[in-house]
Amino acid sequence: MSEALATRTARLSALQTQMASAGVELTAIAPTDNLRYLLGFSPQADERACLLLLSARGATMLMPDLNAEQAISAIPELELVRWTDDAGPEQALRLALRRLDAEAVRRFAADPEMRADTLMLLQDALPAAAPVNATTVVGPLRQTKDSRELELLQRSSDVGDAAMLAVFETLAPGISESAAADAAARTFSSLGSRPDFTMVGSGPHGAFPHHDSGERLLQEGDAIVIDLCGQLENYFSDITRMAFIGQPSQEYLEVHAIVEAAVQAGIAAAGPGTVCEEVDAATRRVIADAGYGEYFVHRAGHGLGVSMHEPPWIMRGSSVELRPGTVHSVEPGIYLPERFGVRLEEIVHITDNGCERFSSLPRDVHIVA
Amino acid sequence: MSEALATRTARLSALQTQMASAGVELTAIAPTDNLRYLLGFSPQADERACLLLLSARGATMLMPDLNAEQAISAIPELELVRWTDDAGPEQALRLALRRLDAEAVRRFAADPEMRADTLMLLQDALPAAAPVNATTVVGPLRQTKDSRELELLQRSSDVGDAAMLAVFETLAPGISESAAADAAARTFSSLGSRPDFTMVGSGPHGAFPHHDSGERLLQEGDAIVIDLCGQLENYFSDITRMAFIGQPSQEYLEVHAIVEAAVQAGIAAAGPGTVCEEVDAATRRVIADAGYGEYFVHRAGHGLGVSMHEPPWIMRGSSVELRPGTVHSVEPGIYLPERFGVRLEEIVHITDNGCERFSSLPRDVHIVA
Repeated sequence: MSEALATRTARLSALQTQMASAGVELTAIAPTDNLRYLLGFSPQADERACLLLLSARGATMLMPDLNAEQAISAIPELELVRWTDDAGPEQALRLALRRLDAEAVRRFAADPEMRADTLMLLQDALPAAAPVNATTVVGPLRQTKDSRELELLQRSSDVGDAAMLAVFETLAPGISESAAADAAARTFSSLGSRPDFTMVGSGPHGAFPHHDSGERLLQEGDAIVIDLCGQLENYFSDITRMAFIGQPSQEYLEVHAIVEAAVQAGIAAAGPGTVCEEVDAATRRVIADAGYGEYFVHRAGHGLGVSMHEPPWIMRGSSVELRPGTVHSVEPGIYLPERFGVRLEEIVHITDNGCERFSSLPRDVHIVA
Repeated sequence: MSEALATRTARLSALQTQMASAGVELTAIAPTDNLRYLLGFSPQADERACLLLLSARGATMLMPDLNAEQAISAIPELELVRWTDDAGPEQALRLALRRLDAEAVRRFAADPEMRADTLMLLQDALPAAAPVNATTVVGPLRQTKDSRELELLQRSSDVGDAAMLAVFETLAPGISESAAADAAARTFSSLGSRPDFTMVGSGPHGAFPHHDSGERLLQEGDAIVIDLCGQLENYFSDITRMAFIGQPSQEYLEVHAIVEAAVQAGIAAAGPGTVCEEVDAATRRVIADAGYGEYFVHRAGHGLGVSMHEPPWIMRGSSVELRPGTVHSVEPGIYLPERFGVRLEEIVHITDNGCERFSSLPRDVHIVA
């Protein structure tokens, strides 16, 4: 058996075990990161319904006819139920459900990123069934990274570090945000990663946590939030660092030091057995104690793997336990509207007695003299 | 009133008119092409629920707090109901529905590309309501392009033509499919478009309608399907042409001529008042009469605009009428498994008495000598 086939078989079987313990009779996965995780392959995602369907009986795939040959050559062992543009997907879906003995299920798990029209198609075919979020059953598998996944995440992070250094080198007064972001994209591409989110938020733009890099020109006195994500062989990197054009103000340095202390508190809290919300609380406490609580407007982090954002969520109310192999970000921030923002982000993986970060870059503000 | 604000206001009001005539009391639009069409802006699409909600009362937007400032600066007139990571979206959604007098609707329209978890959130808040596909109400608006949209589609198509010529220049024995596809991507980027789907399917790969360009090296005797899509200022281009390395075989030339005749039949059929399935049938008849009916495995075309694929669908069973301003592809193909494929694709816009194509490239096979 090839390694890829062995991985697919093991993951589908582990998913069936999760389903049994969660009382889920059918799981429907669309061409999303979940499918890429389970099968190592994801067909074209468009308006044509395409679903991996899994029950205790086995797996089958509802597949648009025009993409079927490709799926067969990628995953020869998988049973397909094909549908043509002429016939539409309804009948094929019913046939697939029959094969899986899933026509009368009461509870099915739907991929959270599935298109709404595909979910409505499933709901029409299973009018008596209630959908639940498939993260319930797939999340626990994806949360524990194996050694090969950790190795890919390390390589992906190394490329992310290089992209950050490339942005640092580009920063100068008069350079646009998007030109600086392009330097990151070029570095990702040249080192084998696909650039994804590349944010350079300067001055007041840094106060938007998810700013789109634009044509604003960097100028003396700008604090700059740089948040870069790339994807290498399906696995993401994600890193945020700060830069400053000229000599940072006293206020900037104070805010930076508070965010740095919050990162350290989050990393110190993250370890096996810790509950996600405790890591969130550890970062939040530092920022609140310093009087900036209301300016930390987002959760402290997210899981990372084949998705840029995936469970577990490092946030209040999340009682998911961290365990060896969990990978997540620690990324507190302080955003002062119309003035500037500061965010620092590390990706860590949980070890047997704490956690380790992937990046080897310091978190000091990079000063552009 | 700025032009952008006037466009937004007119489109939301037209959508309310469509809703009234379709008996839809509430429409929910996610950060998808539908939102980009309606508002000229689309916030980050991720796992945080973000929805434009529209009823006869007006519009409001359910918005993750951390992206709210950006939305306000892009669309200052829009009412937002914000939710934080800590609080979650449920209460904010209920508040938004209350403001729109939509807590007890029986029928709501859901964006077909909305994430399934967001649809489940809506269904939880509206347990008595049945969702319908929002294409029912948004599709008719998007189907009729105004003069500014037609102008953007023309400019986008011009860039697509240039990208096709760049691929033609790159083709040679020993060049990989992905290297040829990269030439298209570079041309799109350098002329202001964002490259999207760029397929170079050579030899047997051309028999996969949606092949992913890979490392296969072009060789003497290859028929090559080149399908290129880019996006300029939100508007797509889409074109497919054929190339051949060396002297095409008699069989290739015959199949090419049949597909060419099918394109011509489709273009001749397309005009105001024609029903979509008639255009499909016109292309299909030519191919079936020539004995290749079973190898034309997909619909004859799709609408094009802010999405690469959008209604109306040029396929059997589609009784949508074409009208002046409708833009769609005509793209019959013949796919001979494990041997080669031939597809030719034109984008046309319906005029007062027929249709016109955007591309100015001939459809002859490009021969690489």
